[in-house]
Formats: sequence, structure tokens, C-alpha cells
Amino acid sequence: MAPAAGAASTRAEGADHVTLRRHNLSVVLHHLRTVGSNSRARIAAVTGLNKATVSSLVAELIERGLVHETESERGAVGRPSQLVELDGRRVVGIGAEVNVDYIAILVRGLDGHTLLERRLPLDVAKLAPKAALGQLAALIQEGARDAAEADGNGALHIAGLTLAVPGLVQVEPGVVALAPNLGWSDVPVVELMREALGGAPYAIRVDNEANLAAIAAHSEVLANPAPGMTDMHDIVLLTGAIGVGGGMVSGGRLLRGGHGFSGEVGHMPIGPADRTCGCGRKGCWETVVGLGALLELAAAPDDDVRDPDLDVDARLAELTRRATSGDVRTLEALEQVGRGLGIGAAVLVNILNPDALILGGYFAAMEPWLTPHVERELASRVIAPNAGGCRVLVSRLGFTAAVRGGAQISLEAVFADPTVVDVGSDHVGLGARAEQVDATAVVSGSTPATRGGFS
Amino acid sequence: MAPAAGAASTRAEGADHVTLRRHNLSVVLHHLRTVGSNSRARIAAVTGLNKATVSSLVAELIERGLVHETESERGAVGRPSQLVELDGRRVVGIGAEVNVDYIAILVRGLDGHTLLERRLPLDVAKLAPKAALGQLAALIQEGARDAAEADGNGALHIAGLTLAVPGLVQVEPGVVALAPNLGWSDVPVVELMREALGGAPYAIRVDNEANLAAIAAHSEVLANPAPGMTDMHDIVLLTGAIGVGGGMVSGGRLLRGGHGFSGEVGHMPIGPADRTCGCGRKGCWETVVGLGALLELAAAPDDDVRDPDLDVDARLAELTRRATSGDVRTLEALEQVGRGLGIGAAVLVNILNPDALILGGYFAAMEPWLTPHVERELASRVIAPNAGGCRVLVSRLGFTAAVRGGAQISLEAVFADPTVVDVGSDHVGLGARAEQVDATAVVSGSTPATRGGFS
Repeated sequence: MAPAAGAASTRAEGADHVTLRRHNLSVVLHHLRTVGSNSRARIAAVTGLNKATVSSLVAELIERGLVHETESERGAVGRPSQLVELDGRRVVGIGAEVNVDYIAILVRGLDGHTLLERRLPLDVAKLAPKAALGQLAALIQEGARDAAEADGNGALHIAGLTLAVPGLVQVEPGVVALAPNLGWSDVPVVELMREALGGAPYAIRVDNEANLAAIAAHSEVLANPAPGMTDMHDIVLLTGAIGVGGGMVSGGRLLRGGHGFSGEVGHMPIGPADRTCGCGRKGCWETVVGLGALLELAAAPDDDVRDPDLDVDARLAELTRRATSGDVRTLEALEQVGRGLGIGAAVLVNILNPDALILGGYFAAMEPWLTPHVERELASRVIAPNAGGCRVLVSRLGFTAAVRGGAQISLEAVFADPTVVDVGSDHVGLGARAEQVDATAVVSGSTPATRGGFS
Repeated sequence: MAPAAGAASTRAEGADHVTLRRHNLSVVLHHLRTVGSNSRARIAAVTGLNKATVSSLVAELIERGLVHETESERGAVGRPSQLVELDGRRVVGIGAEVNVDYIAILVRGLDGHTLLERRLPLDVAKLAPKAALGQLAALIQEGARDAAEADGNGALHIAGLTLAVPGLVQVEPGVVALAPNLGWSDVPVVELMREALGGAPYAIRVDNEANLAAIAAHSEVLANPAPGMTDMHDIVLLTGAIGVGGGMVSGGRLLRGGHGFSGEVGHMPIGPADRTCGCGRKGCWETVVGLGALLELAAAPDDDVRDPDLDVDARLAELTRRATSGDVRTLEALEQVGRGLGIGAAVLVNILNPDALILGGYFAAMEPWLTPHVERELASRVIAPNAGGCRVLVSRLGFTAAVRGGAQISLEAVFADPTVVDVGSDHVGLGARAEQVDATAVVSGSTPATRGGFS
């Protein structure tokens, strides 16, 4: 039970019969997302709606291309029962990402299936924001076309596009206030993106990378719950790179803060006072647990694992190899970082009491050596018994977490109000064609991390 | 815009006409809470419901004793327009508190008006939980009777009772897992309270003290917004005593965490490593900013301001007097505590990005000397420009914050579903009479803090 506080619980709008219908369409769609496929009778039983209403609602959802019929695979007595499930072929959401050294997109069907996923190396900080977003627009247009063709029917309804950016984002009006690692400041990303796409007819949003990664990680733990943990609606995701960011889901909702600037966990002042952070301050947490700190502890300055020109996955694979083979310096470095990670994690767990602390980025790659130290620190430093019930988990989404989360929230508008998708409306092909990208440079596949190829 | 993350946004229940009616009753009641009084025509305009529906809804709310009619005070042309407003006379919520050295109650009408407020000194740690709750039950029964009599109609419908306890609380099933300062561990508070009240026919809840204080503080900032800050739905309240707790409202909802153990901010490891905390750990934040730390810095061991047998308000008044008169030791102590408070505050603001950080407890009493240091640390340590838009505010609720918040959420069930209040149902007088309390010891008045009586 989590009663609303104060007048924020005010629902200003009264409901009429149109609202009621929309609400019930949404209830059926949400239900199918949660349970997969279901018969009309079961939908009626679970939602409390009567069977005739459910039949009418399902008919409308089919007409809008949001659900389709399928047959029960279980051999029931008599004729197979007709099941209904989400239709992932027509309505899609797109997630896109601008990061320090790559741009990426992911096209996701309403049913959660990934239709297409691409990543393209790009030195974003060397480009003007407009040029970088132009490259991304081309990747999006090409990706949407290819997804439509691969799908076979050549007609996709794009519910929305959400861009992930590593920085302080003002979701409304769609501006990146500050992204130090990209060299961006007050960039009107949504406006530039719409121009670059030649006036796309769908919703375009921009959000913080860690927020979107947290949304994806939350779905990940709900879909693959740890034993005994089936209702994890409070999570903290830690992104691990040179910087460390936090994405938080609280009571099933993204915790954005008053101005959308939450999650700057990397700058908690719990590191040594003499260590200077990329932000210019001293003693920030990420100076102890960022990738730079680990590499400095683990290897000499001329060691290849510290060469920023080499692929980070390959360098992490080499560290993994060394740790596995018992290399003392590597193991000591991991222990020191693991303890520091645990100390900061305990701060977050004492404040937020999440069901799970989820390690992302490089933390996930090195987790076998980090997790034991994190768990030890949580056990001793969290006031609530048993670390307040918090589990330390590892995200398997790698670099795809943010684009996954972006694609997912692009679809939320459809789940909230299925009538936003008109009967027979399609988007692909609309808008002027953006500058062509070099298709040969496009990386594809759902696990872009290539391990073990080092030296 | 704050899209829901993952499947937590699932609304499992379809709506029928009974639900629709309930929803619309709730919409009208919420609307009146937000705006005060309003005409039926304005209610219709704002909620989007048609006028006939609004008239029917208002009639039902009047019948249930939740709203009543009043006349416009503004001299309009023609007959005065009939206004509708919340009725605070019949339906009440009760907040109660068990703390280290007192028990307290507050009875609040549906319209937010305080009908009655009482505080009774009690050395709770010296009593068994059952005995302490027995004393509280007597205070509640007597208070409810007196409130009913004072009201003149002798019939109150108690919507619910919410107990505040300083400790780790499991809201479901209503157990205090750990309250070190009370010496409580795994106490089934709701069950014991219901027994002590002789089987009260209303909902009884227990919650963490800082959570309930945060709910009250959130309402306080909404009712009295700082200039330019009218929609503060993300706040952090800091309780300041020997221990320091945090209550957080995020997106208008209390942030409880996965198991209800959030807000243990006093134990962030940002203090000196050699300072031992009440929790047994070292370097906790509250060893630097708790009341004990301030008193130790500000006064010699034999100074009366460090005498725990004297009233804390009187000791704070003396410190205020010294600070106002420019006493160097006092001012240096406040500066040191202020800086420490700012460092921890910056951690919270970087993580949560609240609209406001609200100082409660002793922080509020000493705020003129603390706030400048807190603001300076926030300005330099928060990554987002302008401290992420966070204001440092001061709660004026003093000791009443938790009981206020408790009474407020006791009424939430009525706002969520006005049909829980039947026509003509009353509670006062039901249940066996609890052990009588010494009425002469009862403290009354909305500002129990008595300042300036020191020495």
C-alpha cells in the first residue's frame, strides 16, 4: 500500500463513456502484455469486465492492428480455444542513442519483440550536435525501412521515437541541458531531430541514458525474476563506464526528480579527497569505481587494457581472462573497486531500499569479482536487516539497455490509450529522406559485445 | 511527463458503471480539496463532467456527509451563487505517534482542519510495547470523544487511524520490525492497537515517522508554495534529532522502497571514520549533523544545553539566543554542522533531484544559521546547474508533522473512494473503553514548542 501524498493524488478529469471505453481497451492491452496470450473468457475473468464487452474490445483492438488471434497449442478436449495476443508486426516503438563513441537504434514491436537493432561507431564529440543527429536520423530512416521490408508487409506504424543521451536532459521541452562527454550544452534535441527526419509525424522524446537503461532493466527483472522475487518494482540500475550513473524505478515508475536531473550518483563525495573527478570536483564516487579507476589499479600505464583506442569489450575480456587465471594485481584491483562499489551501493540502498541493485555496463562484465564485495558491504552497512531485502543482480543487456528502454517507452502511449493508433495508418516512407549512412559500417545483432578477442 | 516503467503500469481492473460513478465522486472530492469551495458549474467546467452529473454527484456527497453547501461571499449580481465545499465536521482521520519521550494524537476533519491535538510525555522505552500502546489507545479514545463533543453533534465517522513510529516499519502486515530508540523489535503494532482500542471498526495503519512527516511537509509546501514554486511534487524532508531520518515524496507519491525501509539517510558514510554512531557503525552522517554533534561542538559537557533531562525546545531556544547574540563557539558549531548538513544534502539532491529539501526537527529551529551553509554546499556540489532547481525550505510543523501526516493519509481512503463512508454511519463510542489517562498531563495547542523559557 502506498497512499499518495498531498494533493498530487488529485485526478482532475471526470470520466465519461468515451473515457471508459478507452480505459477498458487499455486494460485489455496491458493485461495481454503481462500474461502473453489469453482467451476472451480468461480476459473477462481477470479484468472483471463482462464477456460481451471483452469481445467488443478485442474486435476493436484487432481492427487497430494491436492484437491478433491465435490458437491454443495445448490439446484441449474439443475444438482448440481461440486465444488473443499482442500483434508485434504493425505498431513499433523506436529507441535511439547518441553516446560518446557510437550511435544506435532499436525497433521494437508492440509485443516486445526486437525487429531490428543497429550500432554505428561515431566520434560524436567531434561533430556539431546537428551533424551527429543527422547521422542518427539516417540510421533511423534506413532501419525503419529495413524493419518494414523484413516484416514483409511494408507498413509500420511508428508509435514514437525516444533518444537516449548521457547527460542532464529536460524531457520537456526536449533539450539536453548538459552532456559534458559529448560537449553538448542546451541542445534542442527534439527540434533538431524532427528537422533531421524531415518532419516525422510521430512523437519524439529525449531522455537520460541511465533512466532509459533502468526502464529496460526493470522489464528485464520482471521478465526473468530472481527466485522468490516476482514483484520487483523498486530497482536501482548502475551504469558503469568512465562515469557512473544511476537509473531508479520506484513503485514501478521512473524516479526523475523535480526537474528530471536525478540519478547523478557518480558524484557522491565518498572517495578520497585528493582524487579529481571529470566534473572538476574532488572525491567523487566515480573516481574510485569508474572504469578509469579500475584500469589504473589493474595495469601499468603502457598496458594495452588501458589503451582507449582499443575496443572496451576486448579490454574487459582481457581483464576477465587475467582474473580467471588468478592474476594478483587484477584481483586486488577488482577487490578494491568492489569494496568502493559496495560502500556507495549501501548509501543508495539505505536511502532508496530497492528490491534490486542492478549492475550494468562494465560492472556487469566484471561482476563475478565485484558482487561478493558489494554484498558484504551491503550486509554490514545497510541499517535494515538482510540489506533491506535488496538483491545484487546483473543486467545482461550490455550496450542495448538504453535503446531498449527508449523503444519501450515509445510504445507506452499506445498502452495508455490504444485509440492513438488509427485503423490503417502507417508512417514509414513519410518525411524527407535523411543523409545516407554507410551501411557497411552498421553493426547488427542483439549482443554486440564481442568477448575474448583480445591479443 | 513521467511514463510508467515496465509492467508495473498494468491496471488489472476493467471499469464498469459502478466504478465510473465511484471514480467521478472521487474526482469531485479531490477537486474540492484542491480548490476549496466551488460552484457546481465550475466543478463541471474543470472536471469535464456535465452539469447534471455533477449535481447528482454532489447530492450523493452531501448525503454521505462529505461536502456541504455554502454561499458565495463575493457580492455577485442577482442571488448569491451556491457553492460546495468539503465538510470537515463528520468524517475525520486520526494520526497518532509513539516516540522516545512522548505520545501524541491529532484529529483532522476531511477539509484538513485540525479538530484536536494532544501530546503526553511518556518514557516509552521503559514500558512494554503493549503498555505504551494502551496509553496511546486511551489518549485516542478520549480525544475522539472530546472532538465529537466539541463539534457539537456528537457523531464522528473515523475514516482511519495511522500510527507513526521512529523505526523500520512493515506497513503490511503492520509490524514495527526495528525501532532501536524505543527498544522495539518485531512488534505487531496494528494488532496490539486494535486490541487496546477494544476492536476499533476503522482501518488502523502503522508507518515510519519520517514518511508521515514528509507527507505533512509536502502538503505544507503545496499549501504555502515558495515564490515561483507552485508544483512541488518531489521533496525530501530531513528530520533532525539525535538521529536524522529522511522522508521522500517523488512524483507526488511517498517513496517507500521495495520493503518500506527507505529514508535511512542518517547512516550515509560521509562523516569522520573515527566517530561511532548509535547504530554501532562508524562515520555515519548523523554523527556529524545529529543534535548530539551540534551540542558537543557548541557547549562544554556541564553546560545545561547538553542536559538531556531538560526540554529540547528550551535548550534550542538557548542556543538560538547565544547565536543571535554572536557567541563565537555557538556560531562556529552551527557553521560546522551546516557544512556537514550541506554535504549530505548534496548527496541526496544529486540522487533524487527534489524540488525542495525541507529542514525539520532541530534543523528547522536553527535554520537561520544552517541554511546559508547548506545552500553553499549544494551550489558547489550538485552537478545540475543551480542545484538542479532545489530550494532549501523550513518546515513549521515542529513535533506535529508526523501526526498530521498520519491523520492525512487516514483520510486518503475516503478521497480514493467516497462510498466507503456510508450514509449515517458513526464510530465514536464503539469499542471498549481503554485505560484512562491522566488528563491533566495532556498538552494541547497547535504549537506545542515553548520557546524562550530557558534559564
